[in-house]
Amino acid sequence: MTFGEPIARREDPRLVTGQGRYVDDLGRDALAAAFVRSPHAHARITGIDVDDALDVDGLVAIYTWEDLDGRVGEPLPLLIPHPALTHGRTAHPLARDVVRHVGEAVVMVVARDRYLAEDAAERIRVTYEPLPPVVGIDNAANATYDVHDDVPGNVGAHLVQETGDVSAAIGAAPHVLEFRLDIERSASMPLEGRGVYARWDADDGSLRVYSSTQTSTSVRMAIAVKLGLPANKVEVIAPDVGGGFGVKIVHPWPEEVLVPWAARLLGREVKWTEDRREHFVSAAHERAQVHHVRVGFDDEGRLLGLDVRIQHDHGAYTPYGIIVPIITSTQLLGPYKPGAYRVEFTSLYTNTVIVTPYRGAGRPQGAFCMERTMDRIADELGLDRTAVREVNLIRPEEFPYDQGLIFQDGRPLIYDSGDYPEMLRRIKELIDWDGFAAFRAEAERMGRRVGIGLACYVEGTGVGPYEGGHVEIDSSGRVHVSTGLTSQGQGHQTVFAQVAAAELGVPIEDVTVTTGDTRRFGYAVGTFASRAAVMSGNAIALAARKVREKALRIAGEALEADPRDLEIVDGVVRVKGNAAASIPLRTVAVLSNPLRYAFDEAAQQATQFAVGGSPDEPPLTGEPGLEGRDYYSPPRSTFAYGMHAAIVETDPDTAEIRILRYAVLHDCGRLINPRIVEGQIHGGVAQGVGGALYERMVYDAEGQLLNASFMDFLMPYATEVPRIETGHMETASPLNPLGVKGAGEAGVIPGSAVIAAAIEDAEGIRITRMPISPSELYHLRLAAASGVAERTNRAGSASPS
Amino acid sequence: MTFGEPIARREDPRLVTGQGRYVDDLGRDALAAAFVRSPHAHARITGIDVDDALDVDGLVAIYTWEDLDGRVGEPLPLLIPHPALTHGRTAHPLARDVVRHVGEAVVMVVARDRYLAEDAAERIRVTYEPLPPVVGIDNAANATYDVHDDVPGNVGAHLVQETGDVSAAIGAAPHVLEFRLDIERSASMPLEGRGVYARWDADDGSLRVYSSTQTSTSVRMAIAVKLGLPANKVEVIAPDVGGGFGVKIVHPWPEEVLVPWAARLLGREVKWTEDRREHFVSAAHERAQVHHVRVGFDDEGRLLGLDVRIQHDHGAYTPYGIIVPIITSTQLLGPYKPGAYRVEFTSLYTNTVIVTPYRGAGRPQGAFCMERTMDRIADELGLDRTAVREVNLIRPEEFPYDQGLIFQDGRPLIYDSGDYPEMLRRIKELIDWDGFAAFRAEAERMGRRVGIGLACYVEGTGVGPYEGGHVEIDSSGRVHVSTGLTSQGQGHQTVFAQVAAAELGVPIEDVTVTTGDTRRFGYAVGTFASRAAVMSGNAIALAARKVREKALRIAGEALEADPRDLEIVDGVVRVKGNAAASIPLRTVAVLSNPLRYAFDEAAQQATQFAVGGSPDEPPLTGEPGLEGRDYYSPPRSTFAYGMHAAIVETDPDTAEIRILRYAVLHDCGRLINPRIVEGQIHGGVAQGVGGALYERMVYDAEGQLLNASFMDFLMPYATEVPRIETGHMETASPLNPLGVKGAGEAGVIPGSAVIAAAIEDAEGIRITRMPISPSELYHLRLAAASGVAERTNRAGSASPS
Repeated sequence: MTFGEPIARREDPRLVTGQGRYVDDLGRDALAAAFVRSPHAHARITGIDVDDALDVDGLVAIYTWEDLDGRVGEPLPLLIPHPALTHGRTAHPLARDVVRHVGEAVVMVVARDRYLAEDAAERIRVTYEPLPPVVGIDNAANATYDVHDDVPGNVGAHLVQETGDVSAAIGAAPHVLEFRLDIERSASMPLEGRGVYARWDADDGSLRVYSSTQTSTSVRMAIAVKLGLPANKVEVIAPDVGGGFGVKIVHPWPEEVLVPWAARLLGREVKWTEDRREHFVSAAHERAQVHHVRVGFDDEGRLLGLDVRIQHDHGAYTPYGIIVPIITSTQLLGPYKPGAYRVEFTSLYTNTVIVTPYRGAGRPQGAFCMERTMDRIADELGLDRTAVREVNLIRPEEFPYDQGLIFQDGRPLIYDSGDYPEMLRRIKELIDWDGFAAFRAEAERMGRRVGIGLACYVEGTGVGPYEGGHVEIDSSGRVHVSTGLTSQGQGHQTVFAQVAAAELGVPIEDVTVTTGDTRRFGYAVGTFASRAAVMSGNAIALAARKVREKALRIAGEALEADPRDLEIVDGVVRVKGNAAASIPLRTVAVLSNPLRYAFDEAAQQATQFAVGGSPDEPPLTGEPGLEGRDYYSPPRSTFAYGMHAAIVETDPDTAEIRILRYAVLHDCGRLINPRIVEGQIHGGVAQGVGGALYERMVYDAEGQLLNASFMDFLMPYATEVPRIETGHMETASPLNPLGVKGAGEAGVIPGSAVIAAAIEDAEGIRITRMPISPSELYHLRLAAASGVAERTNRAGSASPS
Repeated sequence: MTFGEPIARREDPRLVTGQGRYVDDLGRDALAAAFVRSPHAHARITGIDVDDALDVDGLVAIYTWEDLDGRVGEPLPLLIPHPALTHGRTAHPLARDVVRHVGEAVVMVVARDRYLAEDAAERIRVTYEPLPPVVGIDNAANATYDVHDDVPGNVGAHLVQETGDVSAAIGAAPHVLEFRLDIERSASMPLEGRGVYARWDADDGSLRVYSSTQTSTSVRMAIAVKLGLPANKVEVIAPDVGGGFGVKIVHPWPEEVLVPWAARLLGREVKWTEDRREHFVSAAHERAQVHHVRVGFDDEGRLLGLDVRIQHDHGAYTPYGIIVPIITSTQLLGPYKPGAYRVEFTSLYTNTVIVTPYRGAGRPQGAFCMERTMDRIADELGLDRTAVREVNLIRPEEFPYDQGLIFQDGRPLIYDSGDYPEMLRRIKELIDWDGFAAFRAEAERMGRRVGIGLACYVEGTGVGPYEGGHVEIDSSGRVHVSTGLTSQGQGHQTVFAQVAAAELGVPIEDVTVTTGDTRRFGYAVGTFASRAAVMSGNAIALAARKVREKALRIAGEALEADPRDLEIVDGVVRVKGNAAASIPLRTVAVLSNPLRYAFDEAAQQATQFAVGGSPDEPPLTGEPGLEGRDYYSPPRSTFAYGMHAAIVETDPDTAEIRILRYAVLHDCGRLINPRIVEGQIHGGVAQGVGGALYERMVYDAEGQLLNASFMDFLMPYATEVPRIETGHMETASPLNPLGVKGAGEAGVIPGSAVIAAAIEDAEGIRITRMPISPSELYHLRLAAASGVAERTNRAGSASPS
C-alpha cells in the first residue's frame, strides 16, 4: 500500500544526474529555426529585405507571413472564448502588417544550425513605421490611441458579477473603506523555455512533434487543424519538460505551428529552442492588475458589502481568453462570506507581451486584495487581524457553500469541503500568533523591527472537463500507466504510480508512467489549474480498478475460485486465506490474450493452441489484454485551501526585508504523497516570495522590457527562501473517488499578501503595491514619515514607532 | 447503403499506377542486410572465416550466432504447440552448429548498401562437414539417419482421430477400395518476397519495424520478447504488401528479429529485402503429403467407413506447428458424411525448406483425397459421379452438423449452415453435366479427347480467437476505420469501408481504413485462414454500431430529440421525417470533445467555454471523441463451401492439357462485395490451376532445389487460366452479426481434385499424384496401355478407349 506514503520522487535520480531528455536534447541533426522579432512595441511593417541573408552558407529557408499557406497564415485560435470577451484578438504566427509588442515574430529563418540561422536572421532588414505604444494599465485606460484599430479604448472584455445589492449594503454599513491595490507584471519563467522539434515522415504521411508543452493533445489538435492533417497522423510528445508554471499551456504557440509546417514543407527535421531573451519578450506574462476595493463592515469586522473593480492588463492579444481576471474576481473571496458582493473587471490591451495564466492564475492578486482588506478592517476597528478573519469564515457545517458566482469552468462557484476555523486555530498555534507580541517586544528591545502577517486562500482545483487513464499489465508483470496530460516536474511518475500500485496491489517498482505522449493516450486537457492529481489521478484509479476486476475474473477462472474470494498481494492474485492457490499477474496477463502464448512457456503448458484457443477455452469476452481505460469527469471543481503566516524583519537602516519564519497549513484532501505535496508547497512559496519581493517586468514608456535577462530579472535563490514550516489537514473531497484536491499552485497564492501584511506590521505603514523592494520600502518609510502615505496601527506592538 | 454492392476496389487506382509503398520503397537511406546461407541440406558448421570480408568498403557489421545476445540467440518460438507435436523443433535465427536445409541463414552482413553487403557475404568462408540429407516423405520414413539427432525416425508428430469403429465398418462393407494419393511440394510464392526495415529511436527507446507480414501485432510481440522491450515500445507496420498466401503469417522470421536487433545495436536504420532465390530456399513451402486411403461403401456408394493415413513432409523445422496436417485430416471430409472415420497423420522432418500453411492450407490435399475417393467409388460401382456424391452429402436440415472431430482451432468441427444438395444441383446445371455425354461424343467424333470433373469442398473460415475494430469520426467528418490484421491485396480498404459506411450511414468516400499498423490498433491475430472479413468485418461493424449509438445520443441532445427518432443519411443525423432538424456527423464529433471547440467556429458559437465546459453542459459521460472500439470473437469457425466443375481437353499426341470450361459455385454467406469475392475466387482458381498443372518444388536427393527461380518454377500466365464461370449462393452464417463466411482461400482448394477428375475422365486412367505435366500424363498413358497403371471407366463415354 503506497497511497499516502511520503516516498521519494522516482524521477529524481534520472533528472538530478542529468539524464533528463528535454526537447533540445533530441534531434541533434535537425535543422534549426530562428526568428526575427519586432524591436518595436507598436509599428507597421513597411518592408522586409532578405537579400543579405541569402549569402549565409547553410541557410535553408526564410519565411514571412506571405509564405504561410492554408490555415497556417490565419490568426492563432482564441482558445477560450467568453461572451464578455467582446473584442478578443489573437496574433498571426508571423506578423502580418502590424507588430503589437516587442518580441513579436516577424520572419522565420531555417538553417543548418542555430548559429547560421541567427546569422541569417541578423542580416534580414525589416523596416517599420512606428506607432504610439500603449504601456501599463493606467496608460491603456487613458490612452488616446489603441493597440488594435478596431478595439476602442483598448477594452477587450468587461464582466460584472453581483450577488446582492452592494451599493445598499455598503451604504448601510457602519464602517466603509475604499482603496486601490496594484500587482505588477511577472512571468512563469521556467528554467527550460519553449521548444519544438518536428519530424515529417513522408513514408507515412505523418508528423511527429516534440514540444515543451503543458498540453500535447491540444497541440496535436492545433497542428492537425492548421496543417490540414487528420489528428491520427500527428503525434505530439512532451518529453522531459523543465517547468511550465502556466506559460506552456498556451497552444499553439506560433512556433508550434511554424516548425512542423516547415518540417513538412522541407521534408527535413526542424527544431527551435527558445532562448531566454525570447522567453522574456515573446512568451507570456501575468499578474498586472489594479484593484479598486470598496468595503462595508460592522463593528466586529464582519463584511456587509464588498465592491471590487479590477483593471486587467492583458498585453497585446488574448489567445487564452479572460481566465485570469475571472479567477481573480471569483477566487478573491477566499474562505470568507463577503456579504453582498459585486465584482467588475475590464480587460485592457497594451503593447506588451500577452498575458496567460501563471501559477496561481489571478489568485495571488485576489488573495492580496482580500487579505489587505481584512488587515485594513482590523486596523480600522483596532481588532486582532485573526479575529476579523474568524468572524467572516465559512463554517464547516455550511458546505457545500455556494458563493453565488460563476467560476472559471463555467459552473457555479461551490466550495465542496473544508474546516476553515480549525485551520485558523492551528495556524495561529503553529506561528505562535498570540506569543508574537512578546517576541516583538524582545526584538524591539534589541533595535530590531519585526512583523507578523497571515493570509488565507481558497483554490478551485481539478477543473474539468476530463482526463483519462490507461493501465496495462504486460506478460512480464510490468504495469504501464498512461495519461494524456503532461508533466513538467510535478512528480507524476511517482504519484500516478502510487495510485495504480495501491489499486492493483503491485509493488510500485513494477509501475511505469507515461504522460503527454499522444501515441499512448490521445485524449487529454492538460496540466494546469492544479488538476493533474485530481483528474488523471482519479482516471488512473478508475482504470486500474477495471484492470483489477478483469484480473480477478481471469484469475478466478484459472484458480476455479470466486473473484470475490481473491486478493492481489505483491503482484500475485491469491485466494484469501490460502496463499498456495495463487497466480502471478504476469500469468494472468498472458491468459488474457491467447496470442501471447507462444512466447510464454508456462502459458504453453496451460493450453493446447495458440491460435484458435483450446476446446476448454470460451471465446474472448470483452477485450484482449490485461488493460483498462477510464475517464474521470468532475461535476465541478474541488476547493483546496490554506493559510500562511510569516514573520519578517526589516532593517531599520537599509530596509532590507528578511523572512524569519514562514508557516503553511494546507488542506488538499487526501494526500497521495505528503512529500510531493510539501515539495509543491515549497516551490510555490519560493515563487510567492519571488512575487512579493523580487520578480517583476520593468517596461519603459516605449514598451521596451528593461530587465529581460536573468542579470536583471531577480529571482530568489535558496538563500532568500525561508525554511517552510508545513502542516497538513486532510478533508476529503466528496466529489471524486480518491477524495483528493489539487496542490500545485497553492504555495504561491498568499505570498504577496502574507509578506505585505508582515512588513506592514513591522513598519507600521500601508503597502498597496507588490512586489516591494528595499528601496521601495525605504521610500514608503520616507513618505509615511512625511505624511504622504498612511501609517497603520500595528497589532500587539509594544511601542508603536 | 454500400454493403453487398459490387463496387470497384478503392485501392486499385493507387496500386495499379505504381503508387504502392512496399517495404523496399521505404528507408532508402537505410543500411542493407544480406545473409550467407547454407549450400548444404544437412551439415555441421566447422568454421566461419570473415577476414576477407572485412576489406569491403562500406561494411558495417558481420554477425554469426555467437554474436546474438539475450533471447535473440535462442531458437525461434514454436508458435502453435500441440500435444501431438511431441518433437517440435525450431531453428536458431542464425544457424548454431548444424544447418538442416539449403538456404538456412548462417551469417548476417550489414553494409552501406545491398551490393556491398552481398560482396562481403560472398567473401565469408563457412566450412561445413556434410551430413546425410533426408529428402522426401518416403526417404524420411525409411531413412537410417535423422534430420534432428534427438528426433528418432524423423517423426515430429503423430495424431489419430477416430469417430467410430472404422475397421469393423470397412470389414463389413460390401465394397472396399484402397489406394495411395500424393501431392507434391509447392509454395505461396507472393510477387513481393519478405522484407523488414527497422528504425531504432534512441530518443524514445523505441523501435519501428516495417515488415511485409501477415501479422504485424504478432511480429511486434515476437520482437518485444526477443529484444527485451515492452510491447508498447515496438511499433510494427505492414505497409503495402505484395501478396502473402500464408508464408508471411510465420512470425518472427529470423530476419524479423535480426534486422531490428541490428538496428538497435548499430543505432542505424537497417533493411533487408528478400530476393527471389532466398524466397525459394529460406521462406516456406507446403502441400507435400502422401495419403493412404481405405474406404468401405455400400451399393449406392454411401460411405460406411473411411480410413486415411497421412504422411506429412514438414521440412526441417516446425515453427508453425502441425496445423497443415490437422486441417487435411479434418477438412478432408468436405460436405460428406463419412460413416465411421479414422484419420492418422505422421509429420516427418526432412532436410528441406520448412512447411507452413499456403492458401488452402492442407485442404487441397484433403479435397484431392476425398474427391478421388468419390470418383473411385463411382468408377467401381459404375455410377454417375454426382450420384455417389449426392447420397453422401449432409442435408440442409442436419445443420449444425458435428463431424465429431477437433478442428484446427481446437474446437469441435461443427458445420454451421449451408445447402449442399442444392449447390450440387446447380453446379450440374451450370456445367451442363447431363449434357456432357453428347458434348464428348461430338468431340470424339472430331478426334478430340475431353473429360469432365467435379469436386466439392467445405472450408472452415473465420477462425478465432478474435479481431478488433476501431471506428472514429473526426471533426472534419472523415471516418477512420482501423483493425489490427494486415492486408496483402484482399481489398480491405474497400470491404471494411463498406461495412463501416453501411453501419454509420455515411458515403464510402468519407471512410479510410488502416490495417496492420500497431500504432493504430494493437491487438490482432492476423490475416490467414480466410478470416479477415468474418473477424475484422464483424468487429468493425460492432465498433461502428457503438459509434452510431454515441452519435445518436449526442445528436439527440443537440437536436432535443429522442435518439430513437433519429437516422443518419449521407453523414447527417436527422430527425426521421423532418430533414430540417439535422446535424452533420462532423459537428457531432466536435460536440463529443469540448477540447476541439477552439478550432471550430460553429462549435464556438454553441458553447461558452472550451476548457471546463459551460454551465449547461453536464460532465463528460463515457469517453470523449466520436469513436468506438469493439471485438468479435466467434464461438467457433464458420463453414463456407463450394463446388467446382471443369471440362478439360487433352491432346492425343502431345498430352497437352487444356481447360475448356471452369465453373464455380460458392457460398460464403452474405456477400459484402460480390466483385471482390469473385476476384478472390478467380485468384484462387488460378493458384489451383497452378497447383494442378505447373507448380512444384523439384528437390534432388542431396536436398538441392533444382528449380529455384521463375525460369524453372512454372506458374500459370493469364493464358493458362480459364475463364471462370461463377455463381453465388448466400446462406448466412448464424454465428456472426453480419452473417458472413470467409472466401479468401476457397478458389484454390478443389483445383487439383477437379482437374485430375476431368483428365481421368478424358483419358480413362487413374491419377494418383498431382501436379501432372503433359509428359507425366504421356507416361501415364504408356503405363496404362502396358497394364502397369490402372485404367478407369469414364462416365458417359461414348467410346471407352
